[in-house]
Amino acid sequence: MDEEFDAKVTPWEVEGIIDYDRLIYEFGVKKISKREIELTREVVGEVHPLISRGVFYAHRDYDVFLRKYREGISTALYTGRGPSGNVHLGHILPWIFTKWLQDKLGIDLFFEFTDDEKFLYHRDFTLDDVRSLTRENIIDLISLGFDPGKTHIIVDIDDIGYLYELAVRIAKKITFSTIRAVMGFNSSTNIGMIFYPTLQIAVCFLPTELYGKETYVLIPAAIDQDPYWRLARDIATSLGYPKPTQIHAKFLPGLGIGGKMSSSQPETAIFLIDPPELAREKVMNSFTGGQPTAELQRKLGGNPDICPVYKYYEMMFEDRDDKLRERYLNCKGGSLLCGPCKSELADRVAKFLVKHQEIRDSAKDRIDEFLIRNKF
Amino acid sequence: MDEEFDAKVTPWEVEGIIDYDRLIYEFGVKKISKREIELTREVVGEVHPLISRGVFYAHRDYDVFLRKYREGISTALYTGRGPSGNVHLGHILPWIFTKWLQDKLGIDLFFEFTDDEKFLYHRDFTLDDVRSLTRENIIDLISLGFDPGKTHIIVDIDDIGYLYELAVRIAKKITFSTIRAVMGFNSSTNIGMIFYPTLQIAVCFLPTELYGKETYVLIPAAIDQDPYWRLARDIATSLGYPKPTQIHAKFLPGLGIGGKMSSSQPETAIFLIDPPELAREKVMNSFTGGQPTAELQRKLGGNPDICPVYKYYEMMFEDRDDKLRERYLNCKGGSLLCGPCKSELADRVAKFLVKHQEIRDSAKDRIDEFLIRNKF
Repeated sequence: MDEEFDAKVTPWEVEGIIDYDRLIYEFGVKKISKREIELTREVVGEVHPLISRGVFYAHRDYDVFLRKYREGISTALYTGRGPSGNVHLGHILPWIFTKWLQDKLGIDLFFEFTDDEKFLYHRDFTLDDVRSLTRENIIDLISLGFDPGKTHIIVDIDDIGYLYELAVRIAKKITFSTIRAVMGFNSSTNIGMIFYPTLQIAVCFLPTELYGKETYVLIPAAIDQDPYWRLARDIATSLGYPKPTQIHAKFLPGLGIGGKMSSSQPETAIFLIDPPELAREKVMNSFTGGQPTAELQRKLGGNPDICPVYKYYEMMFEDRDDKLRERYLNCKGGSLLCGPCKSELADRVAKFLVKHQEIRDSAKDRIDEFLIRNKF
Repeated sequence: MDEEFDAKVTPWEVEGIIDYDRLIYEFGVKKISKREIELTREVVGEVHPLISRGVFYAHRDYDVFLRKYREGISTALYTGRGPSGNVHLGHILPWIFTKWLQDKLGIDLFFEFTDDEKFLYHRDFTLDDVRSLTRENIIDLISLGFDPGKTHIIVDIDDIGYLYELAVRIAKKITFSTIRAVMGFNSSTNIGMIFYPTLQIAVCFLPTELYGKETYVLIPAAIDQDPYWRLARDIATSLGYPKPTQIHAKFLPGLGIGGKMSSSQPETAIFLIDPPELAREKVMNSFTGGQPTAELQRKLGGNPDICPVYKYYEMMFEDRDDKLRERYLNCKGGSLLCGPCKSELADRVAKFLVKHQEIRDSAKDRIDEFLIRNKF
């Protein structure tokens, strides 16, 4: 049995070892090629490592978005978060990229917190639970340095007034058969979950409504969200909006063997509110691509391709390509052992958390500056 | 084949000759008995002809509502309208009764206009269509003399902020299986229609939220709406609200043979914006329970029990029981012919419309006084 067949990628479940090439085929998206990388360089002025290293690796009309931007046509960014737990490093990977794009392009970002979805999905969640998580998640988001003048947070339940009319127009175009097929629902799914996708789709069209002019929207997000965008693109034209465009990321792996970083395995996830020392411990206890003994490692070399520690350098903690390459070769060649490699990552992670948690304290009072309801 | 089996009564379709006793059995509601009529007299101070004549004929916990009111516990009224066309006499029958209750009890009425539902249900409706109908329907409603201090109009799309949090809590309790069974949906139903019932249910619980105390809600409405209330009652306790109570009305018949007054057969419906002369013509062209000729009528008598003209006197245009009884007996006895009986009804209908349309002109400027968003 192929390992690929064990992997499950839906907006609510990502399990097993993911074959990203297979997802391109299954979801019907395009791989980011040299062409899109060069277009990024032309339009944005530089290429973020998350693109050049293939973390953002697939897309739908990312090139169209860049060309529209270059032509001076109205554009906006959109991404979001389901507040089902504390924010971990895996969550912020697309946010870091989104912030880079926003800084470079100077355009608005609409950021949706889907409190309704998470309340509806998790049997035991109360509204107070998701409210409290939403607030904490917002604080993590704004602590990353987003521009409050250009970053507009939508909290579904509180800001439903911005979305419901769009949602109703969207809902009229989608039957239960369709949503069942696209989202994997069944007859036991509650009717809130069945309707919810209209709200995630609605934000694709919201900038056009708020600006009063045709606006091309780019959504940087993890690839598991693709079913929403597929639906959104199917109905966009008939509703009078440009098709939303996407750039899809791979998942940051957890610190264990295989699978994405997940809140349900807290010992393999680095949360943004983890005490730095705890995070350091988690890194030091990480699975690696190393050999059973230092001696064997020196002789045979390690395997960075399956190593989460290496992946963290690649995806988040080593900006310089030359340094990353050096680390890769030294690991393969056996001159870099897992101990020092993990230790250095632990330092960088801890340093990041210390700084983040400092900013976090003052960010608590700045939430209002980011809420869409205070601006549009 | 029993005629009853031809009748279809759902919130979206009422067709054929309705066996109201059978609906009591099918829907599992209770018939209004002498006990409830006497309780009404005790608590309200009098009994409206629509109860004593059996037009409001069934209920769920109407007696509980009256007793709670008598005990001084917080209560409110709730009814509504799906703005799918112009308002006709059939629509206002429950409103007239609701206004009477409101006047007598001095309590708030929450009135929901389900513009989302009608947009979602009717393939060809645009949002502009339902917006315009909603506005016109609101004008008809307030022209009936409701107290703006105690009457709070909710327009679903515009006022979704009052409803969505409740709707999400409700939605979490209802699976697709349940909504399919209760509402007669199928896989081709759009996901807006599937979610919509949560909004009609939400208003049952809104007064408790707005007042900040447990509030018993009575819903006077036509019996086809019962599926919503059945669902609402099933989940009320688990959400921490009193079960909403109902008093169910029969339908005002159309001017043709059998069936309720319906916008889809405009020649058999009296619209509140009909020119009075047109309404008069419609009444004069009505089907009746009379004999083919005046001679036969004098000899055999008419049949008021199947006659829409008689029903209009009974349900809306003859307050005095003695006069109604006289008309019934004179028809049966053959001394009252259809011509004069229709002519007198036509006069009363025309008089009502002239007065209504006068008030209507000035009501156009008073909409704001009734909108919930200007008050809570």
